[in-house]
Amino acid sequence: MTPRPAEAGKSAAAAQAVEPLAIVCGGGVLPVLVARKVAESGRPVVLFPLRGFADPAFVSSYRHHWMALASYGRFCRLMRAEGCRDLVVIGALVRPALRELRLDWGTLRVLPRIARAFRGGDDHLLTGVAEFLEDDGFRLVGAHQVCPDILVGGGPLGARQPSTRDAEDIAIGMRLLAATSPFDIGQAVVVADRHVLAVEGIEGTDAMLARVAALRAEGRIRAPKGRGVLVKAPKLSQDRRLDLPTIGPRTVEGVATAGLAGLAVAAGGVILAEPQDAARKADAAAIFVVGVEGAA
Amino acid sequence: MTPRPAEAGKSAAAAQAVEPLAIVCGGGVLPVLVARKVAESGRPVVLFPLRGFADPAFVSSYRHHWMALASYGRFCRLMRAEGCRDLVVIGALVRPALRELRLDWGTLRVLPRIARAFRGGDDHLLTGVAEFLEDDGFRLVGAHQVCPDILVGGGPLGARQPSTRDAEDIAIGMRLLAATSPFDIGQAVVVADRHVLAVEGIEGTDAMLARVAALRAEGRIRAPKGRGVLVKAPKLSQDRRLDLPTIGPRTVEGVATAGLAGLAVAAGGVILAEPQDAARKADAAAIFVVGVEGAA
Repeated sequence: MTPRPAEAGKSAAAAQAVEPLAIVCGGGVLPVLVARKVAESGRPVVLFPLRGFADPAFVSSYRHHWMALASYGRFCRLMRAEGCRDLVVIGALVRPALRELRLDWGTLRVLPRIARAFRGGDDHLLTGVAEFLEDDGFRLVGAHQVCPDILVGGGPLGARQPSTRDAEDIAIGMRLLAATSPFDIGQAVVVADRHVLAVEGIEGTDAMLARVAALRAEGRIRAPKGRGVLVKAPKLSQDRRLDLPTIGPRTVEGVATAGLAGLAVAAGGVILAEPQDAARKADAAAIFVVGVEGAA
Repeated sequence: MTPRPAEAGKSAAAAQAVEPLAIVCGGGVLPVLVARKVAESGRPVVLFPLRGFADPAFVSSYRHHWMALASYGRFCRLMRAEGCRDLVVIGALVRPALRELRLDWGTLRVLPRIARAFRGGDDHLLTGVAEFLEDDGFRLVGAHQVCPDILVGGGPLGARQPSTRDAEDIAIGMRLLAATSPFDIGQAVVVADRHVLAVEGIEGTDAMLARVAALRAEGRIRAPKGRGVLVKAPKLSQDRRLDLPTIGPRTVEGVATAGLAGLAVAAGGVILAEPQDAARKADAAAIFVVGVEGAA
């Protein structure tokens, strides 16, 4: 491992405390939130916004280096030059098509491992990434580890609470997610009146909710409007440093449009973007948002 | 139980052999196939086509009584008048909205049991129906029991066979379906390169395949065109007399449009409508259709 400038003349522990945190930024508001909270806590941050994903307006307020995907060699050099060891990867990142990537030499070096990881589901891919980062002397840290209050806690977020009937649907959803968890698939299901309406695949939660809304419009859903729950939880085997499921105001809107009663997530296992806005939207639509203890 | 005219002066076994088979007909070609095959075998059939679902053109070639959904009282009287004890329920039947049903008195009698069954998933509903039919002296028979060659057997249907890679995807799909089976949900998944792309909910197999096609068009699927398998199997707990999963030429078209390599079903657990047409379409699109032994 190359010696890092920040460590000169300091104990390892002290060095770690002031070492800047690298934040690899995808799209959406989460990188903004995490960068702000970490910087406010006194730890310097260096952003590595991903071109085409991260929001340029936000990035400019912090020290940053724009990155292309697959420029891992350049990333390693910049990390070392900045004296960073810890990195957080956060934000939306639609899975890229391989042909769109422009590889650099450092990426070519790890490419066989990426290719192997690519043959499985998401878990394999992300686990592979974490492994070669560690081999290069970096340390992948979960956004929730540097910024614990981005996780949904136990109990309701807004004014509404789930009914006994909703609690049954939530329990079924959580059991189903536990059963599908070994298969490295979606992290959300919709259950209404004990009937599973939809299971998330690679389309994502928003698209699944849109599907439920369309099925309702077509009269294909037995349960009346205002019945049913979106249930979301991390996979049991998931590397939580890279890929915790996330909800936010848009999820709340999707739940409302789908005509469901509310949204339940595993407490401590799901990130909540923009909690105030999400709670306001939930109350306005009279739906509940609840963190369920013991389900993560 | 009211004595049936057909039994007069005959042994019970002989009576059963000539007793007409009642076929409650939903939409699609399956009722046609089953009626034709049973009639060809020498057993008389009486059709109970469901208004709004069954095809009038086909029905007119057989003795029949048009039925509305939820006219269970009338159905019981007609069954007895026709000397029918065994009935088959076959054909597509989009789940009706309760408010669209016009109930008769016989239906009202069993309504509390239907209502209870309605609170669960499909399995509960269908099990409930089978139970009260039996209480009224009728016997629910699976279409595959009177007409075994409508089931997909083991091995390939057309010219193509799955590759070793496809076999891996098939195995993952079958394991996933076994894991979700207790939750009484969809009976199909799409797996490509060991990655689960889609899980069927209430939207049905055709809609799920359309989703995969759309995700592919958006560049959201990593696996190249011609990779991936639709895997379909009955639920483990499913009452096979009422609801075996079905594939046909349209499923083959959906698999081709989604850019998959083929379609694998649990041998002996899935109905194949129009096998010649399905095989021809599969060969034309260069996709495989295979029955997997030991998976039903």
